[in-house]
Amino acid sequence: MNFTLNLSDVEALLREDVPYFDLTSSLLNLSSQNAEILFAPKEPVIVSGSEEVAKIFTLLDVATELIVASGHKALAGETVLKAYGNAEQLHMGWKVSQNILEHFSAIATRTRSMVEGANRSGKSVEICGTRKHLPGTKHLSLKALCSGGGSPHRLGLSDSILIFSNHYGLLGGLKSLCTDLQSIKARCPEKKVAVEVESIHDAITVAEAGADIVQLDKLSHESVRKIAEMLKQGGNGTTIAAAGGINDTNAEKYAAAGADVLVSSWMYFGKPADYKVVIRKT
Amino acid sequence: MNFTLNLSDVEALLREDVPYFDLTSSLLNLSSQNAEILFAPKEPVIVSGSEEVAKIFTLLDVATELIVASGHKALAGETVLKAYGNAEQLHMGWKVSQNILEHFSAIATRTRSMVEGANRSGKSVEICGTRKHLPGTKHLSLKALCSGGGSPHRLGLSDSILIFSNHYGLLGGLKSLCTDLQSIKARCPEKKVAVEVESIHDAITVAEAGADIVQLDKLSHESVRKIAEMLKQGGNGTTIAAAGGINDTNAEKYAAAGADVLVSSWMYFGKPADYKVVIRKT
Amino acid sequence: MNFTLNLSDVEALLREDVPYFDLTSSLLNLSSQNAEILFAPKEPVIVSGSEEVAKIFTLLDVATELIVASGHKALAGETVLKAYGNAEQLHMGWKVSQNILEHFSAIATRTRSMVEGANRSGKSVEICGTRKHLPGTKHLSLKALCSGGGSPHRLGLSDSILIFSNHYGLLGGLKSLCTDLQSIKARCPEKKVAVEVESIHDAITVAEAGADIVQLDKLSHESVRKIAEMLKQGGNGTTIAAAGGINDTNAEKYAAAGADVLVSSWMYFGKPADYKVVIRKT
Amino acid sequence: MNFTLNLSDVEALLREDVPYFDLTSSLLNLSSQNAEILFAPKEPVIVSGSEEVAKIFTLLDVATELIVASGHKALAGETVLKAYGNAEQLHMGWKVSQNILEHFSAIATRTRSMVEGANRSGKSVEICGTRKHLPGTKHLSLKALCSGGGSPHRLGLSDSILIFSNHYGLLGGLKSLCTDLQSIKARCPEKKVAVEVESIHDAITVAEAGADIVQLDKLSHESVRKIAEMLKQGGNGTTIAAAGGINDTNAEKYAAAGADVLVSSWMYFGKPADYKVVIRKT
Amino acid sequence: MNFTLNLSDVEALLREDVPYFDLTSSLLNLSSQNAEILFAPKEPVIVSGSEEVAKIFTLLDVATELIVASGHKALAGETVLKAYGNAEQLHMGWKVSQNILEHFSAIATRTRSMVEGANRSGKSVEICGTRKHLPGTKHLSLKALCSGGGSPHRLGLSDSILIFSNHYGLLGGLKSLCTDLQSIKARCPEKKVAVEVESIHDAITVAEAGADIVQLDKLSHESVRKIAEMLKQGGNGTTIAAAGGINDTNAEKYAAAGADVLVSSWMYFGKPADYKVVIRKT
Amino acid sequence: MNFTLNLSDVEALLREDVPYFDLTSSLLNLSSQNAEILFAPKEPVIVSGSEEVAKIFTLLDVATELIVASGHKALAGETVLKAYGNAEQLHMGWKVSQNILEHFSAIATRTRSMVEGANRSGKSVEICGTRKHLPGTKHLSLKALCSGGGSPHRLGLSDSILIFSNHYGLLGGLKSLCTDLQSIKARCPEKKVAVEVESIHDAITVAEAGADIVQLDKLSHESVRKIAEMLKQGGNGTTIAAAGGINDTNAEKYAAAGADVLVSSWMYFGKPADYKVVIRKT
Repeated sequence: MNFTLNLSDVEALLREDVPYFDLTSSLLNLSSQNAEILFAPKEPVIVSGSEEVAKIFTLLDVATELIVASGHKALAGETVLKAYGNAEQLHMGWKVSQNILEHFSAIATRTRSMVEGANRSGKSVEICGTRKHLPGTKHLSLKALCSGGGSPHRLGLSDSILIFSNHYGLLGGLKSLCTDLQSIKARCPEKKVAVEVESIHDAITVAEAGADIVQLDKLSHESVRKIAEMLKQGGNGTTIAAAGGINDTNAEKYAAAGADVLVSSWMYFGKPADYKVVIRKT
Repeated sequence: MNFTLNLSDVEALLREDVPYFDLTSSLLNLSSQNAEILFAPKEPVIVSGSEEVAKIFTLLDVATELIVASGHKALAGETVLKAYGNAEQLHMGWKVSQNILEHFSAIATRTRSMVEGANRSGKSVEICGTRKHLPGTKHLSLKALCSGGGSPHRLGLSDSILIFSNHYGLLGGLKSLCTDLQSIKARCPEKKVAVEVESIHDAITVAEAGADIVQLDKLSHESVRKIAEMLKQGGNGTTIAAAGGINDTNAEKYAAAGADVLVSSWMYFGKPADYKVVIRKT
Repeated sequence: MNFTLNLSDVEALLREDVPYFDLTSSLLNLSSQNAEILFAPKEPVIVSGSEEVAKIFTLLDVATELIVASGHKALAGETVLKAYGNAEQLHMGWKVSQNILEHFSAIATRTRSMVEGANRSGKSVEICGTRKHLPGTKHLSLKALCSGGGSPHRLGLSDSILIFSNHYGLLGGLKSLCTDLQSIKARCPEKKVAVEVESIHDAITVAEAGADIVQLDKLSHESVRKIAEMLKQGGNGTTIAAAGGINDTNAEKYAAAGADVLVSSWMYFGKPADYKVVIRKT
Repeated sequence: MNFTLNLSDVEALLREDVPYFDLTSSLLNLSSQNAEILFAPKEPVIVSGSEEVAKIFTLLDVATELIVASGHKALAGETVLKAYGNAEQLHMGWKVSQNILEHFSAIATRTRSMVEGANRSGKSVEICGTRKHLPGTKHLSLKALCSGGGSPHRLGLSDSILIFSNHYGLLGGLKSLCTDLQSIKARCPEKKVAVEVESIHDAITVAEAGADIVQLDKLSHESVRKIAEMLKQGGNGTTIAAAGGINDTNAEKYAAAGADVLVSSWMYFGKPADYKVVIRKT
Repeated sequence: MNFTLNLSDVEALLREDVPYFDLTSSLLNLSSQNAEILFAPKEPVIVSGSEEVAKIFTLLDVATELIVASGHKALAGETVLKAYGNAEQLHMGWKVSQNILEHFSAIATRTRSMVEGANRSGKSVEICGTRKHLPGTKHLSLKALCSGGGSPHRLGLSDSILIFSNHYGLLGGLKSLCTDLQSIKARCPEKKVAVEVESIHDAITVAEAGADIVQLDKLSHESVRKIAEMLKQGGNGTTIAAAGGINDTNAEKYAAAGADVLVSSWMYFGKPADYKVVIRKT
Repeated sequence: MNFTLNLSDVEALLREDVPYFDLTSSLLNLSSQNAEILFAPKEPVIVSGSEEVAKIFTLLDVATELIVASGHKALAGETVLKAYGNAEQLHMGWKVSQNILEHFSAIATRTRSMVEGANRSGKSVEICGTRKHLPGTKHLSLKALCSGGGSPHRLGLSDSILIFSNHYGLLGGLKSLCTDLQSIKARCPEKKVAVEVESIHDAITVAEAGADIVQLDKLSHESVRKIAEMLKQGGNGTTIAAAGGINDTNAEKYAAAGADVLVSSWMYFGKPADYKVVIRKT
């Protein structure tokens, strides 16, 4: 998937860390020499963000060599990107680049781990990331998700229909929603309508009422399995999305249970990947 | 500390999640009724971001009541913020607001936990957050840090001097740096000069050469204690900053060992706080 | 549907027309008197953009009264919005406001005309606007579409799947695409997959291959009817979207023929609505 | 005329259509192959926007060949622009590029048609476009106008003086304005002062009072001719601008009648030009 | 003249000085008390920028009282603007507000001084500021110019025609330009055409060739007088603009000599006005 | 020091002067020929801004040759930058480029003059520019300061601590501040704390209370000398910053008196440097 941050947004990330100049490198007069900078993860990772880092060093007017593209694996110690040129410019790009690679490779790596977990079930299942990424990072967070083999659950509120209990609570409850579901579907014939429920009973109810997708919030994989079997018996083609507490340790079970989609925020959180950054004379 | 995101940046966060409209709420015709939305943490937190959430609902033209300001504690179940008005507008602000409160209250809460840990040492010590927050979130991440009682280590490269081994490696090594240190200091008489080192020997060397701050990277608290004692014996007023692997479990020990500053990225990572969000008829 | 342009985007529209000041009003010294401005269409329209116009006058620090909200009908001569205050400020907001109301009410009115045409068929059918609005006007164009009772076909390339002949031409043709269709669908279980075709034969082929939506490009309503009947006979629940040359004069026929969705760019083009603008002493 | 949209504004147009990625091309794995894209109008057009389209494909990192520059004629079927490279990148740039070319070539072509109409009069006359373009498209709309051989009537309120009846209505009417006209002119000696009127009588009155330009709103070409003759007889060098309902069918008559400037919004409205876009393997 | 910077641009000015928080006020815990801030010039000034300062304090959520509007005189010690509220917020707005008032009141005051100088000639003459203000300050610089009673010479390159020797040097010289002048004028009938020359001879030449405005660069007031007399004798209504080295000490002479417009950059340079700023308990 | 404005900010400066096109060059049909543009100062200057000018001509798609980088001296008549290409594009970049070079080279040159003055004292002293540059020009103003050999006193309110009388006035006066000073310092161990005072007595008081920096506002160089001697006698290592009325004529005396830092706004004001700009055929 081709997915890269705008040049002006990359400039803004650089400016966030270097609003004017690099005071330390300037005091040390580093601009008088040339050097190279190398980024390599200390543990194997799925890389994400290396294209943006390449743009940063290009903006800094130094030569850049992108070695491992987003979505590919880098081994421990494998150089993902190099840049060559004025040592002060290299220092200006160092930390923001490391931050991008560490944070977003971590999201990509965790996503890949969920994908691999789910794949061990032998079933076809999608790993979707929620909207629960950090505000202000949607572009790079979704890119990391895709780099790991996942996909965005929803881009935001404008592109998809997901009815939560906060919605049907205002509409007189789930039963009332079910009554209206066919007419709601008729008003958006090009989209699937998803409804989130929290029990087996409600799942069957909304599926029978015609929900295209039932999103099961915080149900056990055993419950998911029951629902999947009941729906399959009934010949109902409803998509089953399991959400809430799903991560790389239980993705296989939820996939095996019959979920078509695993919806998770788990990949967004946790420690960044650890990249070694070397700046040395050339 | 007064610290709030610009109105236009808040608008951008809202737009990131709701580029055009709320398709679900619109299909359900929620704009025909009024409701209230309430945000309350499920566990005690130090709140951060409630001012920005208030701005979001104000931008959405609904009445807003900010109950717990950033930097204050909210108990489990305590309502931090309410908004009242058109139910579709409330749904538009729901998730981005929840995301802000959950992510940044978590950073504030973890920071506060480190501050309290350090305070148990009975020493005066500052908790500083590094530049390792997610790219694109500097403003809210630093606000969360301050909400928790910490402070930014550096705002970026332009405002402070911190000499890493990547710097002095290009200058002929630490010894060569030490030779130049007085002349470097004379060129920035209004700022403290910090040097990062990785051993007791190097720490003493740079302190004796005149570094205003020695930043100790990944040294044990025992090593920090030795350095602190040696410097105190020598009557050297060098500030000691300990960095690398410091968190709420060992902050007390590092503080007790004599560090003046604990520099950490730990508070930026981990799970978001869990807020319950209720939207209900009024 | 609640749908309003960001304050900073509204400011940019005002600034586009008034980069610095109103030279004419200033030379005439209009700021020395108060006045009112009234906007009323000369023919009946479906209003769109009145909320943005209200924001413009609020930014200009004059009192504003929004009388007809977007999505509602205004009769010929009916005042849609008034503002009162400094006469120079009123002149600064005049033309950009008139432009917004005239262009986007026209799109809303044409959309409503298609909706009413389609409704005369007695069938449930959605009127969707394409991405063919003027570049740079997506927000207000989609709002106008919704004001008229239509909806966006796609927000852009990131939110939906629509396979054109330019796509399957690169993949070995339609037949090859059909072979892959189930596996493509399995990779996006939360979305419907649409394929655009240009013949009855191809429509049936892709529907049988499992396309969720067949988009019929430039087929006659008789052809659409044949396809609808064939698919219904086959018990295939495929959504039928008719596109290409559909407008308010033939919407009823296409709807009656069995299309679920009418996809059109027609509403975006044509003359703006005509609003009378009066500025007079108060 | 050299006239090109800023790089960051071009990026924004691309992002408007492709906020994150191209979901369809990505699912179809199009990035695994190379292709070329070609844009050619189906009918002869005056091209506008091809420089911006070239920038779009450059931003997408594919090779671009601009064949027909803005302001030049392209025959039916003549390729205006080609780009070569990764097929997914080409698809990302397709529709926004087509939209730019279709909308703005249409404006340029209609403008050219008016210019040619006016030229058939054998008189020197300028075709000026009003401020009635779509809000948010001023830059590309004015470029299209210039591509067609026209020019902007006013860039906005800050650069020129045009006194409407809404102005002099607040000043005690046209007569009162005429009394003040010399003193108004003395305050802006580097600019021409234009006054819009709606009758022969008023036109003569303001011309005699010293207006540099009389703008005749919705007068017939016969009335324009009378005014032109009366002013010429009087030796008055007033510029005559005719506005209101002028288009390519009557431009010649208004030009022949003696108008120096034809002011119109007509070129902004109507159907976009139709471009054929081919994406094919290379 | 109504002329105020956009809210988002005012926010950017505030953010330029206070990117995150006020470290000093925060360390001193000033947010625990209320105060008032008062701005008063130490010498009489023509105020410019007070509306923008009012917006700054409004953005900072403190009550604001605008006492002297832009364009009006403030005596030494007269309070121009007050704000009341949280003392930390007041400190955040202090320096950027003072900077705005001091720099732009100085430009306004110098402009007024030129205007008064020119007026002493008893002639009607306009004081125009060039484009030589600091890059990035056009909006506030032009506002200051207008506050002082001057006006912008040109807003930029897009709105007016001024032919310099750098232009006609490329066209075969002034004589060649004169040959083309009527045809150039016919292509812009709504604007005046200005030509800059550097000698009496050239001035007469271009005026006779039909230039609407001759701009005299660095000619003495005696030369200006000769040109004015020669043109008046010839019955030529050409506007005379004098430029180069004109300031408040010689404006009267140039005005008396017969220039219609004095074009100057002088008002943009020099010391800022001196405002006393008091912050005190309330 | 490497210090260059963002590409998108450079674009904004160009757009500020050329919002759409160059009307004059277009009317004169200059785009039909090639030319070169050369910038050379009429008097010796320290150049600042030539990198930004190079970016402007690159954005205008003409070949650019940067000859004298920021921070270096250019002799009278020495060409600092050349660009070659389409003559209309060269005219579009002319004035904004000249403005940048003239304004910011003047600041750099004045700064250099202060630096050389201070250096004549034979002492090590820093020349720091205040925050009193024009609002909206911080980036280029600070760059000019650095080009001249100075440095920013503070980037803004967020990065440093400087306690003014407006602060301690709210805290019960200077004495009360001195009581708290050690605890304030303990809360910011990585930064120096500066206090501004206006008398010898107060300077000694705050230095003895532990201020890292005493900033002496508007004291004579004799007073500065007394303070420096008293502090040296006391063995106090306090940094002495002298502010208020310091310029190139008295910098040597203040430096000789023992100030470590000279804080000034003087370099920001005054006449721009004078550059000759030639545009000629190639």
